[in-house]
Amino acid sequence: MAAYAQSVTSKLQSFDICNIPFLKESKFKLYSNSCDNKKSLVPGEPDGPCIKTELPGPKSIEGIKHLSNLQMVQSVQYLADYQKSIGNYLVDADGNVLLDTYMNIATIALGYNHPAVLDVFKDPCNLKYMVNRSALGVFPGTDWPCRMENILKSISPKLPKIQMMMCGSCSNENAVKQAFIAYRMRERGNYDFSEEEKQSSILNQPPGCPILSILSFRGAFHGRSLGMLSTTHSKPIQKLDFPSFAYWPTASFPVYKYPLEENSRENKEIDCRCLEEVEDIFHIQKKCAPIAGVIVEPIQSEGGDNHASAEFFKHLQQLCKNNFAYLIVDEVQTGCCSTGKFWCHEYFDLPCPPDFVTFSKKMQAAGYFYSDAVKVKHGGRIFNTWMGDPGKAMILEAIINTIKCQNLLDQVNRSGQKLLCGLKDLEKEFTPLIDSVRGRGTFIAYNVKDEKTRDTVIIKLKKGGVQAGGCGTRSIRLRPALVFQEHHVDIYLDILRKVLKEINGGAKRC
Amino acid sequence: MAAYAQSVTSKLQSFDICNIPFLKESKFKLYSNSCDNKKSLVPGEPDGPCIKTELPGPKSIEGIKHLSNLQMVQSVQYLADYQKSIGNYLVDADGNVLLDTYMNIATIALGYNHPAVLDVFKDPCNLKYMVNRSALGVFPGTDWPCRMENILKSISPKLPKIQMMMCGSCSNENAVKQAFIAYRMRERGNYDFSEEEKQSSILNQPPGCPILSILSFRGAFHGRSLGMLSTTHSKPIQKLDFPSFAYWPTASFPVYKYPLEENSRENKEIDCRCLEEVEDIFHIQKKCAPIAGVIVEPIQSEGGDNHASAEFFKHLQQLCKNNFAYLIVDEVQTGCCSTGKFWCHEYFDLPCPPDFVTFSKKMQAAGYFYSDAVKVKHGGRIFNTWMGDPGKAMILEAIINTIKCQNLLDQVNRSGQKLLCGLKDLEKEFTPLIDSVRGRGTFIAYNVKDEKTRDTVIIKLKKGGVQAGGCGTRSIRLRPALVFQEHHVDIYLDILRKVLKEINGGAKRC
Repeated sequence: MAAYAQSVTSKLQSFDICNIPFLKESKFKLYSNSCDNKKSLVPGEPDGPCIKTELPGPKSIEGIKHLSNLQMVQSVQYLADYQKSIGNYLVDADGNVLLDTYMNIATIALGYNHPAVLDVFKDPCNLKYMVNRSALGVFPGTDWPCRMENILKSISPKLPKIQMMMCGSCSNENAVKQAFIAYRMRERGNYDFSEEEKQSSILNQPPGCPILSILSFRGAFHGRSLGMLSTTHSKPIQKLDFPSFAYWPTASFPVYKYPLEENSRENKEIDCRCLEEVEDIFHIQKKCAPIAGVIVEPIQSEGGDNHASAEFFKHLQQLCKNNFAYLIVDEVQTGCCSTGKFWCHEYFDLPCPPDFVTFSKKMQAAGYFYSDAVKVKHGGRIFNTWMGDPGKAMILEAIINTIKCQNLLDQVNRSGQKLLCGLKDLEKEFTPLIDSVRGRGTFIAYNVKDEKTRDTVIIKLKKGGVQAGGCGTRSIRLRPALVFQEHHVDIYLDILRKVLKEINGGAKRC
Repeated sequence: MAAYAQSVTSKLQSFDICNIPFLKESKFKLYSNSCDNKKSLVPGEPDGPCIKTELPGPKSIEGIKHLSNLQMVQSVQYLADYQKSIGNYLVDADGNVLLDTYMNIATIALGYNHPAVLDVFKDPCNLKYMVNRSALGVFPGTDWPCRMENILKSISPKLPKIQMMMCGSCSNENAVKQAFIAYRMRERGNYDFSEEEKQSSILNQPPGCPILSILSFRGAFHGRSLGMLSTTHSKPIQKLDFPSFAYWPTASFPVYKYPLEENSRENKEIDCRCLEEVEDIFHIQKKCAPIAGVIVEPIQSEGGDNHASAEFFKHLQQLCKNNFAYLIVDEVQTGCCSTGKFWCHEYFDLPCPPDFVTFSKKMQAAGYFYSDAVKVKHGGRIFNTWMGDPGKAMILEAIINTIKCQNLLDQVNRSGQKLLCGLKDLEKEFTPLIDSVRGRGTFIAYNVKDEKTRDTVIIKLKKGGVQAGGCGTRSIRLRPALVFQEHHVDIYLDILRKVLKEINGGAKRC
């Protein structure tokens, strides 16, 4: 691992930014491309964004039109040029250079074209393991035990076991399935499946397919498979027309008043009300569809960057224990350092780890860690064809190594602190246009006064050279890469300030 | 494309099999490694299997023990060495060389380490598109429209649109979701979602989350997500303890008597009974949970390689049309040439294409093709973070090109014909030990007299140097790569014959 870190460092030092051809072509630069920007963690980054055309530009429009004859394109913003994108900068088909604070829906950990990630498959051994993608549950490669051990030892949230999967939904689905198995194992004791269970299961009927439930929270997002949609409650458009597990209960998630320091009494009351509701639901469900597991995000992301206190999570864990339900912490969006800790739930100082912690997105590989208490006895239950993807596990190893050798957790905390302070200043300056600045690390959000204005801010940010993302009904979320540094913060705050000023000016003129 | 085909061909010709180091090490060869095996489509293949140790061997046992401390290993057979595996031959951690007729659960199209697949990411442009894995629904790469067009034009089953996804379950989940949308769109007409629908959907309740159903068949396998498990009815162990959509109906799938030519009258009656049942179920469900879609495999694979006639599928499609339900043909296992046509449902001569055709496994990329009739109006409904994986789409392109330039569809038909004849001879020779030899292309199966003996045959085949796979309760399925040639058929039949003889001998001694 030391040798690997050394090779990454030397690669970073030898990289010559002047060899990036597109840097020479830019026309209307918002920030100069002086080629002496030695402070960037990803070599070759420009000094700032550069917008040449409308967004989407003519080449993107043409590409989207082409694509619309082949597949759905309603959500496509523009085509991106991943040959030219670098570090925190996304370059689009028309050569526009955007500072990316959304990073392909929070999935790019090290920025675009980080040398450590590009190098993974230059190793012919890794390349073979990747293209000969094995059914990891039946014929794993000879490298697999060591790779799993490395990943588990490096990043496990104090849980002894790991299971790889394909994506966030798939990881949550399987953690939930494993919670059902563990719940029924406890109920069944030493007895094996009955004949009645076996026969009824084949026809989707109880007792083989029992009437058990998963508790989730209003505003939650845990994926879009039909199972996970029953635990997702962020936006109607995600759920309309799809049958659902109607008997799976939904509890209120705390929605705090900001700033937190001025509203602590009221926010504590909110915690209490939500926890009482959870307790009531446990009681009610026992009679109809007992709760086998509770799934929760440490910060509700898609739902609007809703935070809850450490106390809330500690009590929630205790309620799970009291009711023999398993706690599944969904770190698909919060995991991998962006909150300033590797796992966001580390902030809660839980007396013991959750039963499951799921991951995906920035980690490229997906899956979950789990406790020995929920181990599965029989094979063929938590299983599918691929059980993950060796290639993605290798990329995850490169990401973990780079986080270590570039001290990216410290970087996130420094940039996050600066960003939070800057946004709080803007909040004061532009009250009531923006409010509720909140976050941990660079996992930060703020609200805009209404949905329409929020959407306008996002459009104007893009015109100004910043790719932003919304969440909830009126929030803007920051999901930059872990290589988002202090000078990127300056650029972001500067452009945002101009946008807010412009909107305020427009409002005054009206 | 012509240039690509030429480069593959020249690569194949220049490959020197004598450079494969492990070929020099083998101790107890069942077949000679003469290094003059020029007839193999994948250069570097040995002439036959070679078993040196027990299976799993000592190194595999050690690796599995290591892995058991980190994750579930109940289904792991042995560790495979993907550096040394080549073509149709899987090499395990102990250097055993197996002729692989199971190919990592039917997922390796071109055999191990095919030069065309290894070459994909030697192109630095492809490498960048792969590691900068984009959110394809929002920021697709500049290459994406052309790649999608190439894939669609090359292999679409006469359907105009494609949607990429992550795996087979994910593809089926989303085809099913899209069927629900289309069903409700037709019902809703020009009206948009009502406020009541929006508000109820967030809480998993109708009318926003309607009580609609998907009809599936006994013995079917469509995946293991909770939604798809409600359409999967192959084995209790896959379903036990998981809540299910209890109101989704299950119909009987034809289970024919073999040989088909001697049982045509009886098999036609079976078709009629099954279709009548489907019709009855449509009628019953209308009152409680109308059927929005029917999902079906062209050959039930995991469930036991159960075939149904072209007439059955034609009538099924007509029943769907009569009842405004969409037909989803799940070609996850049958797609990509192994049945002797690119898509197995081509054999049925349907008067018009199905509404959806899903794919994954051997195609590495996953997703579905769909008709214009089921297009979705609103964005954010058929959506997830990645919407596929650019790297897998590139591998699919290489697979498609190689199928063309190596004429692999012809190869499958030639090998399949030889295999089927050979197995039918063995069926006669070893009645009643094996029966019901059936299949299309190399997608072939046969039954063994009972489950225990079937498992013994698989174990003995492995000892003899053949990796086989079971399905249903007493079947053995062949799922070789598309480069499984006539000389591989000879080796397979020869080893199987020895195994059957040994079992018969053992039975006589008892």
